[in-house]
Amino acid sequence: MLQLKEYTTFIENNLKKVEIPDSPSGLYDPIRYFLQIGGKRIRPILTLLGAELFGTDKEKALSQALSIEVFHNFTLVHDDIMDQAPLRRNKETIHQKWNINSAILCGDVMLIKAYELLCDIDPEKLSETLQLFNKTATQVCEGQQLDLDFEYRDDVSIDEYIEMIRLKTSVLLGGALKIGAIIAGAGEKDKTEIYEFGQNIGLAFQIQDDILDLYADPVKFGKQVGGDVISNKKTFLHLTALNKATKEQLEIARQLKNEPDIELKVKRTRELYDQVGVKQDCKKKIQEHYNIALNALHRVAVPEENKKNIVELAGYLMDRDL
Amino acid sequence: MLQLKEYTTFIENNLKKVEIPDSPSGLYDPIRYFLQIGGKRIRPILTLLGAELFGTDKEKALSQALSIEVFHNFTLVHDDIMDQAPLRRNKETIHQKWNINSAILCGDVMLIKAYELLCDIDPEKLSETLQLFNKTATQVCEGQQLDLDFEYRDDVSIDEYIEMIRLKTSVLLGGALKIGAIIAGAGEKDKTEIYEFGQNIGLAFQIQDDILDLYADPVKFGKQVGGDVISNKKTFLHLTALNKATKEQLEIARQLKNEPDIELKVKRTRELYDQVGVKQDCKKKIQEHYNIALNALHRVAVPEENKKNIVELAGYLMDRDL
Repeated sequence: MLQLKEYTTFIENNLKKVEIPDSPSGLYDPIRYFLQIGGKRIRPILTLLGAELFGTDKEKALSQALSIEVFHNFTLVHDDIMDQAPLRRNKETIHQKWNINSAILCGDVMLIKAYELLCDIDPEKLSETLQLFNKTATQVCEGQQLDLDFEYRDDVSIDEYIEMIRLKTSVLLGGALKIGAIIAGAGEKDKTEIYEFGQNIGLAFQIQDDILDLYADPVKFGKQVGGDVISNKKTFLHLTALNKATKEQLEIARQLKNEPDIELKVKRTRELYDQVGVKQDCKKKIQEHYNIALNALHRVAVPEENKKNIVELAGYLMDRDL
Repeated sequence: MLQLKEYTTFIENNLKKVEIPDSPSGLYDPIRYFLQIGGKRIRPILTLLGAELFGTDKEKALSQALSIEVFHNFTLVHDDIMDQAPLRRNKETIHQKWNINSAILCGDVMLIKAYELLCDIDPEKLSETLQLFNKTATQVCEGQQLDLDFEYRDDVSIDEYIEMIRLKTSVLLGGALKIGAIIAGAGEKDKTEIYEFGQNIGLAFQIQDDILDLYADPVKFGKQVGGDVISNKKTFLHLTALNKATKEQLEIARQLKNEPDIELKVKRTRELYDQVGVKQDCKKKIQEHYNIALNALHRVAVPEENKKNIVELAGYLMDRDL
């Protein structure tokens, strides 16, 4: 059985060893703080599992796994500024605890640090890894831009939404796995399959997140239920509801958008979505991407034994109460 | 004679050819705009000259030269947010013309683009170039942090100031030249010397900038004379003045800090600095770094003929009315 906790601890311990200078403290204290406020560390674990899948020791992909995690944290620091988020994992965000200038500059240095960690690699693998990383990093930023754009648009299609979350979230999961595969010297076809697996797990995970936002058990969820509804976010759940709604239901949705009582807004929206019946559509979409992912993994030409950990991790990611 | 104009045009033309996608336009329009508002393009030209110094065609260092320029522009975009600067080269800054979120994200993508351009290189040179670039990029951010820190400190020493401008400005000039030298396959000692040359030219240039801020001909200067004085910036000029001032002069300086009439503030500060006699100290310091630079260049083991263009560029950089 996959000892996820052990992998997380492995990443946590090694993340602490990443060299962050003491001075200037205004720059490095916030970075040290942010890298240690936790998280599931799923992305770097994917890099380790990507290497192990092809028979390579996880130690060999460690620096690149840490690179992926530092990169992910860079995006969180800058996204938090853009979203004006005061909290991340129940801790103050950098721009909140320090200031916006700090958060901009810390993010910049984290991105550079991610490259530094990435480059600590067998020179023969450097060029391919960098190309994948550059492309992935650019796509993540493009996804964030689309997400920002969608706030001001009322005509976002479901396809556009899927493309946005693919760029903003999923390519990094695919990229994390593929970097592990590159380090392990996997063949071209296998690298493509494992990327496909990661990307589709990412999509499934993100759509699941959309449902959980409104339907999660408030105790287990750990953050405000209905956050997306309150901020009128155009999620997969929301867009599917609008697509299926009758004229009357659309009118209710339109009114709810401006409902000032947020508890009422969340409650009524949930009722509306239940009437329209969107939860099943979302579950179907999740299953669709989950299946694409597992099929891609199935085609990877390594013994099934090697795939066990990755299958378990995917199962763990999907196993949240819906 | 160095045809500086031709080099600038060469960079300008090729910068236009750098692939910037059309979509998402909210991300790429501002980047395209910013990369084309001009500038002297000194840093990428240094990369070209660094390669030519060691007998390599400038075309071979083109992608890395563009990388240096895109990186420099990334720092400008983010610095402009931090400094709340509405204008850059008489054009609106990105955060002013679009918004802060745009400017953050555009800067991020520009930094990634800089890496992409950097990586378009002979694989044998990739690792060394990246290491230098990572280090330089980190130092530039550290310099920016020190600059931000100095705003809130009243005990900045001249040595600390020099270290700040070394990091924020000078290492990039040294790095730009050295990357050209790496591409040309220069020897270790020569690479160190050319870096030393660039770094000291950078220091000389920056101290000169400090003097020009207060003593430039307003017509030729092209921006507000006394900008540093108005914003109470701790420049080399300012710190040297404080160091040499009598008790009475220090008291005048203290009062001038809060003078609301900015024209009067600039005029009186200039009078004070003239009384204290700081201009000569600055010129001496500039000459000191200029000499260190030329001596380092002198030690580079290539025919003097090869050095002509770089010497001329250094002369051009220093030849501003003081």
